Parts: sequence; C-alpha cells; structure tokens
Amino acid sequence: MREAYTHGGGLGLAIARFGGARAGWLDLSTGINPSPVPLPELSPDVWTRLPEDGLMAAAIAAARSAYAAPAKAGIVAAPGSQALISLLPFLLPQTDVAILEPTYGEHRAAFAAAGHRVHAIASLDEMPARAGVAVVVNPNNPDGRQTSLESLAGLQEEMRRRGGLLVVDEAFADAEPALSVAPKAGTESLLVHRSFGKFFGLAGVRLGFALTTPVLAETLAARLGPWAVSGPALAIGAAVLASSETWSKVAGEVAAQAARRDEVLQGAGLTIHGATPLFATVETQDAAALFEALCRRHVLTRPFDYRPDWLRFGNVKGAAEASRLSKALAEALSDTAKGNEA
Amino acid sequence: MREAYTHGGGLGLAIARFGGARAGWLDLSTGINPSPVPLPELSPDVWTRLPEDGLMAAAIAAARSAYAAPAKAGIVAAPGSQALISLLPFLLPQTDVAILEPTYGEHRAAFAAAGHRVHAIASLDEMPARAGVAVVVNPNNPDGRQTSLESLAGLQEEMRRRGGLLVVDEAFADAEPALSVAPKAGTESLLVHRSFGKFFGLAGVRLGFALTTPVLAETLAARLGPWAVSGPALAIGAAVLASSETWSKVAGEVAAQAARRDEVLQGAGLTIHGATPLFATVETQDAAALFEALCRRHVLTRPFDYRPDWLRFGNVKGAAEASRLSKALAEALSDTAKGNEA
Repeated sequence: MREAYTHGGGLGLAIARFGGARAGWLDLSTGINPSPVPLPELSPDVWTRLPEDGLMAAAIAAARSAYAAPAKAGIVAAPGSQALISLLPFLLPQTDVAILEPTYGEHRAAFAAAGHRVHAIASLDEMPARAGVAVVVNPNNPDGRQTSLESLAGLQEEMRRRGGLLVVDEAFADAEPALSVAPKAGTESLLVHRSFGKFFGLAGVRLGFALTTPVLAETLAARLGPWAVSGPALAIGAAVLASSETWSKVAGEVAAQAARRDEVLQGAGLTIHGATPLFATVETQDAAALFEALCRRHVLTRPFDYRPDWLRFGNVKGAAEASRLSKALAEALSDTAKGNEA
Repeated sequence: MREAYTHGGGLGLAIARFGGARAGWLDLSTGINPSPVPLPELSPDVWTRLPEDGLMAAAIAAARSAYAAPAKAGIVAAPGSQALISLLPFLLPQTDVAILEPTYGEHRAAFAAAGHRVHAIASLDEMPARAGVAVVVNPNNPDGRQTSLESLAGLQEEMRRRGGLLVVDEAFADAEPALSVAPKAGTESLLVHRSFGKFFGLAGVRLGFALTTPVLAETLAARLGPWAVSGPALAIGAAVLASSETWSKVAGEVAAQAARRDEVLQGAGLTIHGATPLFATVETQDAAALFEALCRRHVLTRPFDYRPDWLRFGNVKGAAEASRLSKALAEALSDTAKGNEA
C-alpha cells in the first residue's frame, strides 16, 4: 500500500483509504510552497489563442533574468520540468549515466527507459570513469544534501573533457539561489533544470525550464513540438518571474514556513536528517507506522520505499496548520510507541 | 517572408511588418472557433496542486463519452494533440509511413525527425505496399477532404494485416462527428488524435487526446511522464467535454459561422476549394498577393508554400467581423487586380 504514496499526488488514494473530505486533509506530501503567489490577471487571449512566439519569448526572458542566466544560454520552456526530465535522455547518445542517489526517482526512470546504463552513486568521488552523463539534484530531494559550486564546476569540466553532460536539477534551488549554476548556463556540457511551480506554489500550472547550450535547447524545443506550454502558464510565468519583489517576498515566506516546520518536527522529538526551505526529511525508526498513524489523522506525508526510516514533510502554511501538525505528530508518535496500529 | 506565416500563430510577425495594434487585427490564420465557450469556474487547487490522478481520470472519462469511444479504448491526454503528434513517431519501429497529402505538416515533420521513411500520397489508392503506418487527417486540413468510414475501415484492416498502424487525426472532426472513427478506438492498429482547443475556441489551454489500444496509450503516457497536462486544462476539459449541451450549442454556432464565412468569400467572387466547419481554403491565382493585400488591411490569413494558389480563412465571429472581411476582401482583390502591391 505504502508504495502507492511514494510519488506525489497521492491525496486521492489516501482519502479512499483513510476517509475524510479533501479540504479536511493537511497534505504535506510534496515540496510545494503551500502559500501560492496570487495569480496575475490573465488576458482572455491566453486561453483562446494558440500561445504565440511573443508569449514564449516573454516567459523565457523572465526566466533568464530570474535565474541569472547569461544571454548566451539557450532556454527551453516545457509543461513542467518533469517533461524535460522525461525527454532529455532520449536526445542523448546511449551512455553510462551516474546519478547522485538517493534522489528524485524520475531521472533514473527516464534514463533507464531511454536505454542508458544507469549507475547510482552515493558520492561524486564514485563517478564511474565511463560515465558520459552525471545527474545531480541540488539541493537534493529528499535529503537536502547540497553540492558545492566548486564540485559542480569540477564535474562539469570532467564531463566536458569526456564530451558528456552534467545535468543539475535545481527544482528546489529557488529559495537558495547561491547554490545555482544557472549563471553558467550556456557553457559546454551543462544543463540546468528549473521548476516554476514549487517555490511559487503553482504546481498545477505546469511550467519548467531547461537552461543549456543553444543547440541542446533548440533540440529539446523541437522535440517538444510547437505550443507545448499553455498560454496561461507562459503568461503567469512571465509575470511572476519578472518580479524580483515577488521572489524576495516568497523567499521570506518560505524561510518562515521552514523555521516553523522544523520547530514542530523537533518539538515532537523527531530528528531531521536533511532539509531544504521547502521540505524536511526526518529519520525515525518505523516511518511506515508513523506515516499511517498520521494518515489516520488526515495528515499526508511522503514515505520512501528504499528508506523505511525516512519520512518527508512539506511546509505548513501558518500557525493553525503548525499546531494541527504538532498535535497529530504527538498522537501519532504515541500510537506508534504503543505499537497501536490499526 | 511568406514562409514565416505558414504555421499558425504568426500574428506577432504580421504586426511587426504591417503595423497596427493587436486588438485591431482580424486573425483568420487558424481553424480555431472564434467564439470560445465560457471557462468553467476553476477551483484554486487546479493551479496550486500537482494535477492528481482523479483530475486526469475525469478528463479522460469526459473525452471517452464525448468522442463516443468504447470502454476498451486506451486514452491518453497531452498538453495539446500536437504533443502526441510530435511524440508518436518516436515510439514506433522505423518504417515506411504514408501520409495523405497535402495536409497538416507536423505529421511529416515528426515522422521524418524520428527516422521513418515518409511518403506523400495523393490518394489512398497510392498506398505503398511496404507502408507500416498510414496517416489520414479527417476532415483534412487545409482542403477539407473527407475520407469515408468505409475507406478507413479497409485501411485499418490492411494495416492490421501488416502489423502496422492507421493514424487518423480528427483535429477538425468535432463539428462532424459522423466522420469519426473514435467509436472504433481500442481495436488493433488504430490511433485517433483529438484536439480540444479548436472546436471549443480554447487553443491556449493545450489539451489533446490520443485514443488507441490500452498498450499504446500507456506507452504514450509513460513517455509524456507524470503531470504532463496542467490542472486548469484537465478541469476545463472535464467540464466542457462532459456537457453534451455545450457540444450541440457550439456545433450550431460553428455551422452559422461557416455559412457566413462562405457567403463572404463567395460574395467576393472567390472559389472555395475545400472547407470544414472551422475553415475554408480558397483557390485564387495569386494567393501571396491577396495575403499581403489583406495584411495591409490587418486581416491575417494562412498561405501555403506548397500551393501558391491557396489561401485559408478561419471563421469570423459575427456580422461585424463578416462585414469587415467583406470590405477588406473587396479592396484587397481590387489591389491585386491592379497589380498594385506595396
């Protein structure tokens, strides 16, 4: 049963099993900012017309500026960074692909589906000599591990020497821009994935970007085909990403959410194994039991089949949600201590 | 210069060259219903949350019912039918592909990009013996040609014998449901593309479907990856496609638009080569000159590089637009008759 929750979006499943109304659940199963930015006003045209080149150009220009990518970087927009994660492996010659694990599982799935030989490595020191692609999620999901700019520069140089590619998935980097290699986008052998929806709390919009060389960006865009991104997504992305004030405001809100979240988790006696401003992963003896005990209180978290001692918590949005989580955790931990599982 | 307009969405280009404000242009360059259905009310969740399985299931169920596809059909939703047109050729073993031409150019482009050997055929009688894939757009864009259900059944049977696939692109079939083979979806060797945005006038939403065998639908869905379609697109699709009243109302409006459009075109002395309820293609000696003369009056149409005597007109939305088109046509035709091109 637990396996069904090990990818995002499992609230429907949880309701089917544990009951309750959708609005009564506290869904902490993703790393999405629970305080979305307000939607900008949308022209009726974005719904009715095919998204025009100008709309795409505006979204890409806003992304370039927001991510501090240079003019020489090629940028491609897609209906979510997932679409680019799924597509990229099919555009690269089959090779050995090293992925810094454990991490977001879709990189492995996509490279394997495209016929590459995938190697999980626990540290960059284990990089196989034959690897033609290296994948690093930075900061990493779900353990929050950070890879330094220096390490990434070395790895990029190594991949360049091999005629390979360093893929850096910065889905959770918006709140920590100092970690980002987007300012190096456009240099050889580097591709950076960026996600619009997580930091701004608009995951349903489906908007993501790859920042890389113009040639690879063009290849990705051609394979996505024309009009791959919706008009509303492009208009929202262009408006939100163009505002540095919005970015700063959200960064402050997310930091406050993270502080409150960690206070609740630590207050419940849990040990945080790793975190980013958008989620925290705790290490606890029987995460499956805690997951279920929280579900019985209609709090959804994220377990991991490969780490039965990990449970990931997204951010709570205010004092009321924090206190609800705090109470649910106290009760759930008491349940699990008693071995009192339904 | 004209080549830049031979794909949709060229209004920005036209404005850059011929001036005017966007709102002042009459854009007839696509086959999109100019009277969009009203947007249903959208829950904030569709913007903020990852699109959940339930939302996707509702959109697919509504599509199944609206397109009269049987329970055994596999249906995959994508961010526009174009996304499926771009993807499909990469999932099929490389073969000879016969496309009933002239038609929408993206089929040829995608099959060629995936390494298939593409053959343009002018009639189904010319089907190469080695073709493992046949592509028919029905009704056809831009000439309105209809292929009968009987011919398609024979072709599907032939493809089945060959272990191949018949691809029927029904992007313009919503207004002519009797033409559709969607009720046969799920039988061997058939894939049907359907487009949500054209008939309902919501092309910016990006929503399309492929109806085929469950195995091929699952393969397409896996390659698109999770959450490929936005929350708003799924919610809008589910709501609009579930309403047979909306469908009937739109069908009536589109039929009225088409009647008015043909009256204007014929009133101007133009010969309609072929049409569907969503566009008409006229045959005229120098379509390029007429295209430009109309552009100077801020009316955008659709020329074809392979047929310098064709010009396609989308529908006008009411009496005022019809009379504007009528006046622009009279003046433009007078310009071209005088050879008086700027």
